[in-house]
Amino acid sequence: MPQEKLILDGSRVAQDIKDRLYPRVERLAANGVVPCLATILVGDDPASATYVRMKGNACRRLGMESVRVDLGKDTTTEQLLETIRRLNEDPAVHGILLQHPVPHQIDERAAFDAIQPEKDVDGVTTLGYAQTAFGFADYPSCTPAAIIAILDYYKIPIEGKHAIVVGRSPILGKPVSAMLLNRNATVTVCHSKTKELDRIVGLGDIVVAAVGKPRFIQGGWLKEGAVVLDAGYNEGNVGDVDYEACLAKASAITPVPAGVGPVTIATLLKHTVDAAEKYGIAASES
Amino acid sequence: MPQEKLILDGSRVAQDIKDRLYPRVERLAANGVVPCLATILVGDDPASATYVRMKGNACRRLGMESVRVDLGKDTTTEQLLETIRRLNEDPAVHGILLQHPVPHQIDERAAFDAIQPEKDVDGVTTLGYAQTAFGFADYPSCTPAAIIAILDYYKIPIEGKHAIVVGRSPILGKPVSAMLLNRNATVTVCHSKTKELDRIVGLGDIVVAAVGKPRFIQGGWLKEGAVVLDAGYNEGNVGDVDYEACLAKASAITPVPAGVGPVTIATLLKHTVDAAEKYGIAASES
Repeated sequence: MPQEKLILDGSRVAQDIKDRLYPRVERLAANGVVPCLATILVGDDPASATYVRMKGNACRRLGMESVRVDLGKDTTTEQLLETIRRLNEDPAVHGILLQHPVPHQIDERAAFDAIQPEKDVDGVTTLGYAQTAFGFADYPSCTPAAIIAILDYYKIPIEGKHAIVVGRSPILGKPVSAMLLNRNATVTVCHSKTKELDRIVGLGDIVVAAVGKPRFIQGGWLKEGAVVLDAGYNEGNVGDVDYEACLAKASAITPVPAGVGPVTIATLLKHTVDAAEKYGIAASES
Repeated sequence: MPQEKLILDGSRVAQDIKDRLYPRVERLAANGVVPCLATILVGDDPASATYVRMKGNACRRLGMESVRVDLGKDTTTEQLLETIRRLNEDPAVHGILLQHPVPHQIDERAAFDAIQPEKDVDGVTTLGYAQTAFGFADYPSCTPAAIIAILDYYKIPIEGKHAIVVGRSPILGKPVSAMLLNRNATVTVCHSKTKELDRIVGLGDIVVAAVGKPRFIQGGWLKEGAVVLDAGYNEGNVGDVDYEACLAKASAITPVPAGVGPVTIATLLKHTVDAAEKYGIAASES
């Protein structure tokens, strides 16, 4: 008899997070504070524009505010930093999201690090990464936090499991590795220079695909019964794993869409509400 | 015919680093700057006292200065922070080392993070860790940097190798994992909750022991030909690996003593000279 497959439904996890945010947003409103996320989009990448719109819409549906700043594709680092400084100083803004990636003339790291830590609800600053790795971040990176939230929602144990993370970016592969390690997984980080990736992925009780290549992780690589989390989102609504083939081997898997994506957005909203609770009321009284 | 074993002689690597520091220290002296490391010892742990003395002596042998601050075992966090603030403000001090571990009533993380980044030559701040992980730290943690220096001195390739790090402390296991990852190793981090540690260690082309338990890593666990770096230093001059048994399986191994230890100290001196070059001349002119 084939084992039952658990489809890790991100929409359900996201709804659960949002359900618990509603009353908090209402309480804030009663105190005259509307949690507000500022989003910054630089350039005209259509996918990035879609993400930013989705995040703004998600805010409004929850009774939160969203301020959108659109900057042209020729924006300089200095111009972007000036925008961030202005949002840092705006007491009505509780969280700042700079949509990744930015055009290549911009120093993205400098821009991320210009975000005031109290408003870094997307978890992108250098300091925030270390706080995540050391286990005391207020706002860990949203996609890594979403992956952990999905595992927790479905009560999938992490401690003592061997987790394989494919990808090592500063806002995804590295922080998700750190968070899994803090939850007592044994963690292996793989990347483009990894040899025998198929064999290494085959060691994983938990496999996180964070590589940014469509259908990259093959079903045949997986250990029977592995838990697969697909943080990829490529053109044509395709993740970083070959879904059907991986589904056949996995015990649990996130689909794309409706997997990690919606939980990432819900996490961003949660961090913004956290920030509004921490700093918003004081600011509204000052 | 048995394969030749390479004993990774830390004394040689340390000497090589110091040989290249002498002329830099002389040039600084000609500019009226004597690189100065301040060491802080809290409490009366004899091993810690020995380390601090060794570091001070190493400074003096190189023509550098060393200021030693000894604080009683009942020192409060606030008293320690005050000491660190004073050293931060002292223009004659280029580097600050707080000997780890501190007595348990002290918030060690707060103390580490009070060290001004420009003087954090031991690489212990939260921000410094993230900069290490992102590949742009001025002063990565000294023991991890020493491990990389040993591999480089002996021209042992890192890229594409599977490195197993046993231990995940903020100043050793985590940063050495990050540095190996940045050098394109596939990195697995193990710890007390890792299951089948013997099997995982057996995957490693490179094995870093950073666990703090005498003779913990067994020779039988190793893959034939593994490169073993022992960052442990336990009572009785014993490392974290069972040396003789590991020597039998390894292709290269650091001894204890005269392995990672002296290179760690040389790295600390190097960072202090770096700091004196960067900030010392300006300060001496101000």
